[in-house]
Amino acid sequence: MKEGDKRTVRVGLLGFGTIGSSVYGLIEKERAAILEATGVDLRVGRILDIDTEKWGIGAPAELFTADFEDIASDPEIGIVVELIGGVDWAFTFVEASFRRGKDVVTANKQLIANRGAALFDLAKELGRQIRFEASVAGAIPVIRVMREGMVAADLHTIYGIVNGTTNYILTAMYEGVGGYADTLARAQELGYAEADPTADVGGGDAAAKMAILASIAYRSRVAMADVTYEGIEGVSLEDVQYAKDFGFVVKLVGAARLIDGRVSVRVYPALVPRAHLLASINGSINAVYLQGHAIGEIMLTGPGAGGDPTATAVVGDVMTIVGTEGAGFLQNCTCYKQLPFLPADQLESAFFIRMQVEDRAGVLAQISSVFGDHDVSIESMIQKGQGDEAELVFITYPSVEKAFFRAIDGIAGLSCVKSRPMTIRVL
Amino acid sequence: MKEGDKRTVRVGLLGFGTIGSSVYGLIEKERAAILEATGVDLRVGRILDIDTEKWGIGAPAELFTADFEDIASDPEIGIVVELIGGVDWAFTFVEASFRRGKDVVTANKQLIANRGAALFDLAKELGRQIRFEASVAGAIPVIRVMREGMVAADLHTIYGIVNGTTNYILTAMYEGVGGYADTLARAQELGYAEADPTADVGGGDAAAKMAILASIAYRSRVAMADVTYEGIEGVSLEDVQYAKDFGFVVKLVGAARLIDGRVSVRVYPALVPRAHLLASINGSINAVYLQGHAIGEIMLTGPGAGGDPTATAVVGDVMTIVGTEGAGFLQNCTCYKQLPFLPADQLESAFFIRMQVEDRAGVLAQISSVFGDHDVSIESMIQKGQGDEAELVFITYPSVEKAFFRAIDGIAGLSCVKSRPMTIRVL
Repeated sequence: MKEGDKRTVRVGLLGFGTIGSSVYGLIEKERAAILEATGVDLRVGRILDIDTEKWGIGAPAELFTADFEDIASDPEIGIVVELIGGVDWAFTFVEASFRRGKDVVTANKQLIANRGAALFDLAKELGRQIRFEASVAGAIPVIRVMREGMVAADLHTIYGIVNGTTNYILTAMYEGVGGYADTLARAQELGYAEADPTADVGGGDAAAKMAILASIAYRSRVAMADVTYEGIEGVSLEDVQYAKDFGFVVKLVGAARLIDGRVSVRVYPALVPRAHLLASINGSINAVYLQGHAIGEIMLTGPGAGGDPTATAVVGDVMTIVGTEGAGFLQNCTCYKQLPFLPADQLESAFFIRMQVEDRAGVLAQISSVFGDHDVSIESMIQKGQGDEAELVFITYPSVEKAFFRAIDGIAGLSCVKSRPMTIRVL
Repeated sequence: MKEGDKRTVRVGLLGFGTIGSSVYGLIEKERAAILEATGVDLRVGRILDIDTEKWGIGAPAELFTADFEDIASDPEIGIVVELIGGVDWAFTFVEASFRRGKDVVTANKQLIANRGAALFDLAKELGRQIRFEASVAGAIPVIRVMREGMVAADLHTIYGIVNGTTNYILTAMYEGVGGYADTLARAQELGYAEADPTADVGGGDAAAKMAILASIAYRSRVAMADVTYEGIEGVSLEDVQYAKDFGFVVKLVGAARLIDGRVSVRVYPALVPRAHLLASINGSINAVYLQGHAIGEIMLTGPGAGGDPTATAVVGDVMTIVGTEGAGFLQNCTCYKQLPFLPADQLESAFFIRMQVEDRAGVLAQISSVFGDHDVSIESMIQKGQGDEAELVFITYPSVEKAFFRAIDGIAGLSCVKSRPMTIRVL
């Protein structure tokens, strides 16, 4: 670079947990290389953490403070990295950082998914940047790719496997290692699942990430509250194994679609055809699959969590802010629209259906008749077991979901059907 | 954006072939959306093409010129998009564009792989940008990801499946559809392979792309001449099918490594374990797999060619130049080093080996003895066929390639071995 390009950048770090200490360590480790490559002397100038027991462990004690004002009022600190999590305090700190003339990098998906729009507006008004690559899919640079590389790609569909815990569990179930409860317990032992796994297995974590991805892809506001989601708690080993017989893998999929100018963002367990790129995403890794008129299919895969991968994304964002200072207007074009949403029940989906039935003649005819009444067509069917164990498993052709669920209501009411059918969408 | 951010950007297009007309079409199609999202009024201002028969087809005739000077001297044109291909003319036009104060976007892998270093130096000296996302792997934004998102990732290994023609052929061979010659002929009929397929099947096309990827990943100069490459012409249907028996898929792999501060970039057919992410990359699609200390494994997948995907990458680069104008110093940190290269024969590799042998006792002992003399250890072995058809197929543990090839020389000289063994590296 030219001589005049050399400069010093000081970062204020909010939160010194796993990711915070990785960010600190990574900046220290790569500082010489970053200086040599870019002329930027990047350092952590101050660290906010109220837990004084952390002070001095992994970073010099004199960098720590328990008072945000020490960072906000430090004129040397140009970029604040928010890693404290949660929504309210994080929002307060980010807002205050903007007002003190600082740009912000965050890894906080709940903050962006719940209050992103307000922060984007404020950043624009004050001429500041906010970057949040690490909030979705760890080190996979999907936000950067969509925001800057795909400006002309005309993206219409995004599928995400963006929750490692559920993908770990579903992969083990597919491989026949165990059922849902066993595998979840093992995942908790191995540290792949939290003690309270609700946000992961219930789909909420994936929903927050999909809200963010859809906002970027469609440049339209999508908040957590706009996402319909369900989790994998109801998916049984039998479902996964029957799906396998039909040539499918079950995944918890986030699906964002732009159809005729209307947006739909949902998270649900789905049968993915074996030949689809997403079917090969196994274990705790993440993947984001993009489809657009001009690009065909693109998929990005990598670790979705972990201190170092997430810290890599944070440092990448910091360096991008440094590299685009004074020219950040392209970064502020995120989600400036408010496209209408498409009601979920107007969407068309194909379904996998499994139901316990009485093992006698005429049952299939009764069920088929209800499907027919609601314009649901069956693509394939297998009968499993006999007598008390008799089950019917169907794959349907796509139909409007509203009609489909009415058909399921009707079938659930038939005397030959023993309990409400299990239904899982086909991707 | 703020009112003052609105601006007009005029692009000069050099070359109006498949990609050029896609770039023109994409800019026209997305112009309103780009203006709305970013405040940038992006238009093609002038098109250079010496084939006057193209003038007016797909773009208004008055935009065309056969004289580069009409573009160079137009003060409204701030960005030149070079799509004429080849090295010498392209270099001349890019250099002249820099000197006239214009930034450059190119899709020309030969230009960057052969003369990139000179252009990067010149760009830095003159304070201009050159971007070349479309030169590698079409719409897959791998250069952007490595250059801006991975500044702290400490990348050490890059594997690329970056040639669609060879991947199409090898996929068909794996699926047992046909042998090399048949499948190449069919690929030519379908337009997946050129009439003269040398650059694709011989590995040269992949080598140019890997030179570019390694330069970016390691920030060190790697030219086409620094890449050792071989193609897939010698890979037979038997090799692919035997590899399948051992649990491998054969792919033409570009492998760039940074080992103890030394760089190795090679292209060769390789046995990829079925469970590796790269094994699922089938048909004509491309993939780039990145490994770094801080990120673990990341893979990007998508279409490697085609007018619209490539044009998407070009327009993405144009918009990034617009968005980083006046702050482009981060973009000029590419390849500022010259790391030493690691001699190919000092690398360690595991190998697949197939040889026709005489079907009699003692043959395996003789061959094993030669392997032992050169410290090559065998991981597994299968004997195939009998009598005149007898073949031995080995997979070795990794050994230094120099010693390995001496062992192969020794084995080739044994009277019980009918011809020089076929060897293919294991990834």
